[in-house]
Amino acid sequence: MGRGTVYFKSAPRIIATYTVGGPKESEGPLGKYLHQRLSDDKFGEKTFEKAERKMLSYAIDHAVLSSARNFDGIDAVLSGDLLNQIVSASFAAREFDVPFIGLYSACSTMSESLSLGACLIDGGYMDTVVCATGSHFASAERQYRFPLELGCTRPPCAQWTVTGAGATVLSKEGNGPKITMATFGRVVDFGVTDVNNMGAAMAPAAADTLYRHFRETDSRPEDYDYIVTGDLGAYGSSLMDALMKDKGYSISSRHMDCGKMVYHPAETEFQGGSGAGCSAITLNSYFYRELTQKPIKMIFMATGALLSTTTSQQGESVPAISHLVVIDSRRGEAKCR
Amino acid sequence: MGRGTVYFKSAPRIIATYTVGGPKESEGPLGKYLHQRLSDDKFGEKTFEKAERKMLSYAIDHAVLSSARNFDGIDAVLSGDLLNQIVSASFAAREFDVPFIGLYSACSTMSESLSLGACLIDGGYMDTVVCATGSHFASAERQYRFPLELGCTRPPCAQWTVTGAGATVLSKEGNGPKITMATFGRVVDFGVTDVNNMGAAMAPAAADTLYRHFRETDSRPEDYDYIVTGDLGAYGSSLMDALMKDKGYSISSRHMDCGKMVYHPAETEFQGGSGAGCSAITLNSYFYRELTQKPIKMIFMATGALLSTTTSQQGESVPAISHLVVIDSRRGEAKCR
Repeated sequence: MGRGTVYFKSAPRIIATYTVGGPKESEGPLGKYLHQRLSDDKFGEKTFEKAERKMLSYAIDHAVLSSARNFDGIDAVLSGDLLNQIVSASFAAREFDVPFIGLYSACSTMSESLSLGACLIDGGYMDTVVCATGSHFASAERQYRFPLELGCTRPPCAQWTVTGAGATVLSKEGNGPKITMATFGRVVDFGVTDVNNMGAAMAPAAADTLYRHFRETDSRPEDYDYIVTGDLGAYGSSLMDALMKDKGYSISSRHMDCGKMVYHPAETEFQGGSGAGCSAITLNSYFYRELTQKPIKMIFMATGALLSTTTSQQGESVPAISHLVVIDSRRGEAKCR
Repeated sequence: MGRGTVYFKSAPRIIATYTVGGPKESEGPLGKYLHQRLSDDKFGEKTFEKAERKMLSYAIDHAVLSSARNFDGIDAVLSGDLLNQIVSASFAAREFDVPFIGLYSACSTMSESLSLGACLIDGGYMDTVVCATGSHFASAERQYRFPLELGCTRPPCAQWTVTGAGATVLSKEGNGPKITMATFGRVVDFGVTDVNNMGAAMAPAAADTLYRHFRETDSRPEDYDYIVTGDLGAYGSSLMDALMKDKGYSISSRHMDCGKMVYHPAETEFQGGSGAGCSAITLNSYFYRELTQKPIKMIFMATGALLSTTTSQQGESVPAISHLVVIDSRRGEAKCR
């Protein structure tokens, strides 16, 4: 057993996904792959927080519907989000009459939930679980930065929090893509104190997890069709490629970043998308489609910055984490290589 | 397989624990059982948040020391806390070079971490993990309620957030008490909107989990020496006993509540202790000692209120959750009854 890498002999299956995206995300390059495109970023609710929660519960609900199950067949919901006390996830879970496992891993929640969900199924504890997360630009801005009404200027290294939610139904039976391995991340802090430069804070954590994954599983970048990070953005992605190159691994030709994929290159988003919803909607729309249409073996590693406004105000740097899962839609056995 | 109850065939062992308590907690009835009693509630730090983090990292560090291992022998730390973005846990984990699994379940975090930790060990994914959580009165007051400097009057149904942290080392090998089962909680909301009455908000969630546990495992209160809830407090505990009685189970003679145990009856704490640290220090000091000194089979179910200041300000009621583990220090096989 490697330090942090776990293997799933029974290879839990992704049997359904669902995604909800805000207006800006729906207009972006991934818009056509989203299951539900919103024209109203309040989703009919009175506040952005309630809209975020509604997106998440809508995604969970419709992922379960799309798996041809009802909630009687769901053993647990594993979810978390960016709001204080993960209230989007908890309040969404209130609507479903199933056990709830609350997680917090900032924007790395999608892969944390998939890793733990796969352990619960492969270990024989549960048959079917839902893994889900989401975020909202407006609720994140006012919680982490400034009220939108202030109209603050954004620095060039900033990213744009994705308005969207994604849910994955994992099951011990089915024909969908398999989760074959997970590598749990460590908390890595390179001393970045600029809270507008999350890419730089998260890239070292992602590189740490990926490096450990390659070492512990004796694999190489060439063993994977895609290496997908969560929301490093343009600058963070190039930093990660450079860090991996320093460690002797060239990943740039197969490295894709959900943050870079979610918006058209434009001025206001600068480095691309971020937020727990960024990798959640990208994995569960575009990549899920890819996985079901052709045989692919990919790494999915969402990336999270573990700061709060209080830690920044108290002069702390920004620690980060990245949990990794291997998803494989090739037929036949799913081995390490 | 029951809905939410999972069984651990290999029965992971509690091989070490460690607790740190604040000055008030050290003077209370449990003070003599605490491993580290603080005379300074800032623990030598400049802020209460940094003190909270230091307590948590100190507890994790010393639990590992006390297990006669070093961090090379630890496969993961599972932790969370009450601060926004669980920064106490994340920043504590930054000091340890091991995978980190971030959780959020409010004051139910201790039993959530033990449940998931036991799954990871029993499933064969990890050999040894640390489960930990903590809280601090002063950081919780200013985040959830009012700055201490305001000197607000506390209503009679209020509880007092425990300043303390506790850590449990779980391992697949050893001679300590066994974790034999877990029942994951559901989010239950009885419509309580008084944020000063957490006992009333949490009691229905605890009753829901305990009822499901009895039903799914075909067990009765008499099968357990203790049924220990986290921080329902005096009023919440009597409410839970009444709710269980309605369902046909009389638990009052064996029901103990960490919130009721942690302070001497006095005016300022009203209903007793609360906070993630409340059940963490009580389980890992007093109950761990009980478990190692005599054969006991007990239920430990920490209880959490899943609100945030934003949800309360937006008029929401308080959903709650309680995860449950069965801990057994009797020799021989650990069966359901």
